[in-house]
Amino acid sequence: MSDYTQMWSDLGLDLKGHDALLSILGGAYRDIFHSQKDRPEGMKYFDFVMSEVHGLRIKELMDAKAQGRKVIGSYCVFVPEELILAVEGVSVGLCAGAEFNFEAAETVLPRNLCPLIKSAFGFKQGRVCPYVEASDVVVGENTCDGKKKAYEVLAPMVKDLYVIDLPQMKSDAGKDLLRAEYRKFMKKLEDVSGRKITVAGLKSAIETTNAKRSAVKRLADLRKSDPAPISGLDALLVNQIFFYDDPVRFTVSVNALCDELEGRVRDGKGAFPKKTTRVLMSGCPMAVPNWKVPMIVETSGAVIVGEESCVGERGTQWLTEIKGDAVEELLEAITDRYFKIDCAVFTPNPSRLDHVKEMYKKYRARGVIHYSLQFCSPYTVESGPVEADLETSGIPVLRLETDYSQEDAGQIKTRVEAFLERIEAR
Amino acid sequence: MSDYTQMWSDLGLDLKGHDALLSILGGAYRDIFHSQKDRPEGMKYFDFVMSEVHGLRIKELMDAKAQGRKVIGSYCVFVPEELILAVEGVSVGLCAGAEFNFEAAETVLPRNLCPLIKSAFGFKQGRVCPYVEASDVVVGENTCDGKKKAYEVLAPMVKDLYVIDLPQMKSDAGKDLLRAEYRKFMKKLEDVSGRKITVAGLKSAIETTNAKRSAVKRLADLRKSDPAPISGLDALLVNQIFFYDDPVRFTVSVNALCDELEGRVRDGKGAFPKKTTRVLMSGCPMAVPNWKVPMIVETSGAVIVGEESCVGERGTQWLTEIKGDAVEELLEAITDRYFKIDCAVFTPNPSRLDHVKEMYKKYRARGVIHYSLQFCSPYTVESGPVEADLETSGIPVLRLETDYSQEDAGQIKTRVEAFLERIEAR
Repeated sequence: MSDYTQMWSDLGLDLKGHDALLSILGGAYRDIFHSQKDRPEGMKYFDFVMSEVHGLRIKELMDAKAQGRKVIGSYCVFVPEELILAVEGVSVGLCAGAEFNFEAAETVLPRNLCPLIKSAFGFKQGRVCPYVEASDVVVGENTCDGKKKAYEVLAPMVKDLYVIDLPQMKSDAGKDLLRAEYRKFMKKLEDVSGRKITVAGLKSAIETTNAKRSAVKRLADLRKSDPAPISGLDALLVNQIFFYDDPVRFTVSVNALCDELEGRVRDGKGAFPKKTTRVLMSGCPMAVPNWKVPMIVETSGAVIVGEESCVGERGTQWLTEIKGDAVEELLEAITDRYFKIDCAVFTPNPSRLDHVKEMYKKYRARGVIHYSLQFCSPYTVESGPVEADLETSGIPVLRLETDYSQEDAGQIKTRVEAFLERIEAR
Repeated sequence: MSDYTQMWSDLGLDLKGHDALLSILGGAYRDIFHSQKDRPEGMKYFDFVMSEVHGLRIKELMDAKAQGRKVIGSYCVFVPEELILAVEGVSVGLCAGAEFNFEAAETVLPRNLCPLIKSAFGFKQGRVCPYVEASDVVVGENTCDGKKKAYEVLAPMVKDLYVIDLPQMKSDAGKDLLRAEYRKFMKKLEDVSGRKITVAGLKSAIETTNAKRSAVKRLADLRKSDPAPISGLDALLVNQIFFYDDPVRFTVSVNALCDELEGRVRDGKGAFPKKTTRVLMSGCPMAVPNWKVPMIVETSGAVIVGEESCVGERGTQWLTEIKGDAVEELLEAITDRYFKIDCAVFTPNPSRLDHVKEMYKKYRARGVIHYSLQFCSPYTVESGPVEADLETSGIPVLRLETDYSQEDAGQIKTRVEAFLERIEAR
């Protein structure tokens, strides 16, 4: 690994805190990922990406900036990467997956707030996230109350915060609002980049984004097999890196991994033995390095075969149709695509439940673990009706509500083991 | 008090639970309100209303229903009473101010949820709120995440749940959405009542609602005097009864109270001695019988002189302009009026801060107590920047976050006393 100290220092990082973070992150990664058996060779690329997540990838961002490209950071799958790529921007997800510097976050935010939001602030206030420091624009979005209001607090801490308004219902008026907001976001991107969005540029950006999504959809599809050719942890990692990596290189690497996994499926080879208990995860997004629950599940005798999550199929299952010969028509297609995302911030949100059931069947799962981040009202409230409906449909559900600490790991393990016993006894 | 047992039974109330509730409520009311010294005579009317809150008032609702009028229950100041009155409906706020039957509520809702929402469910599930049982339509609204998602859970429990969508930003698109939603709500009310909204009917409804708001604005204005002619508890009670009572009788009674208070102001007579420390409350709504914090404040040597709250000036400070000669023009005026409400669900929400400062000055307060319900992200997140801005402007702030239990009463009293010492020492 090269010495990136100068780059980090130039970005204004707190080098001591950042070193400590990288050391903890590296140790956790080794313990959780390298200890897995029968990993596909293709995961080596993603191991490398993770080892260079604050190094080489940041250098690439800095090189892009030196070439006049803009880095656009965001925290949500409602921010359309197509539009960012259409102005030759670099789209990056921002750090929000670890309990780091919560003491500082809690000086400006309430304690009783979602850990993902507190994490974003902890990283920013501790100056240890090179992505946010490298971002020319940080894009917020009015999804949940916590994020919506926290962006007001974040605004003075970053160079340029831009907030996308979102509807709360899947009505015609809601779609009109989303389309108008994406049109405004296009204008913002054009202004900040000095580049005009063209039909050709936008089509190409949609193709790039669709290819990336198609690759992870291909990966998801391979997990139908028993034995599962890849662990849930590794598949989650790919879905997490989806938000950080260069999209073209990422797509090539995921497809190479899929080629290998197809061979595994043919050969009946898996990351876990055949007939290992299969579970589906559903709920809140798991940002890097939020691996706690998947690690517990997969060290308790089960394999995760799908993620109904923003970091998973909720974020990637829909492609953007390339239709029309005007930017406005392509914008309509983009609006169509994003308006399908069935995040729990919408009311009502019936397609999410349908999707969980489809995935349960498609991936031959035997139970669903509903994962909520603590204090996330959209998902914690929705989890009640979701559990009731699934159980009525004969699908066993374990509802977990947790944060980013390790304090409840033992308790979660006990509950997961009991749940696995329950579904294995059926 | 008459025997309402048959009426309650007909409404499907759980008589045993309801008796227990009324007994606790009556005891709390006596302890908190009747123990106050130097109460205005005009409060006798409101004492009577409270003593008959589940009795005579419910009988009036039942009589109105027997005459073919509809009872429309709601939980939010974004539900326009003007429109309800325009179809000769009866608008009532629904019970959500007490920790009752939370065990049941927590079987369908997460524990980490705002007490106001859990209270609404506790009352409904325990069948002790005659208002919700008498409601022909229960109107929800997409304000905060908790309520938005909880209405999905409430829908199958009530006869007819109707949800008004709300914008999250004060943009042109946001206003378009609100107007369209109010137009739909008009249609809903016309359908359910079988009455057409006419220009004359709507103008009359606006006049009735404006008169009611003008009366409480007059009451608020009288609290500028030192000594304050009325306690904060009594003024809060009037603002709470605002949501339940017959609007015309309420207006007459508030104006009679104000006539008396004008005499008190002339005579230099107050509910507390002159120079009693004056504080302003700001934050979440306090529904009946949520009197905990005001009671603590006013038994600790201070007087509350204003409420920047939905149950207070945020809900009542704006009148609806009566302009135009078409229903659509009046609807525009109604939209204008409601779009001003500076609830923390909006982002950004700068006018709220301006209003707190104006009230602080107008009512000659010496400190602001910021009141948040636990887990209410809109207000708990907004409270940080509000406190920082007020303190920078030289306005002392005490931030409280609490629920409906009495467990923290001692701790709150200690903090309130320390805060009063701080502001008295300035």
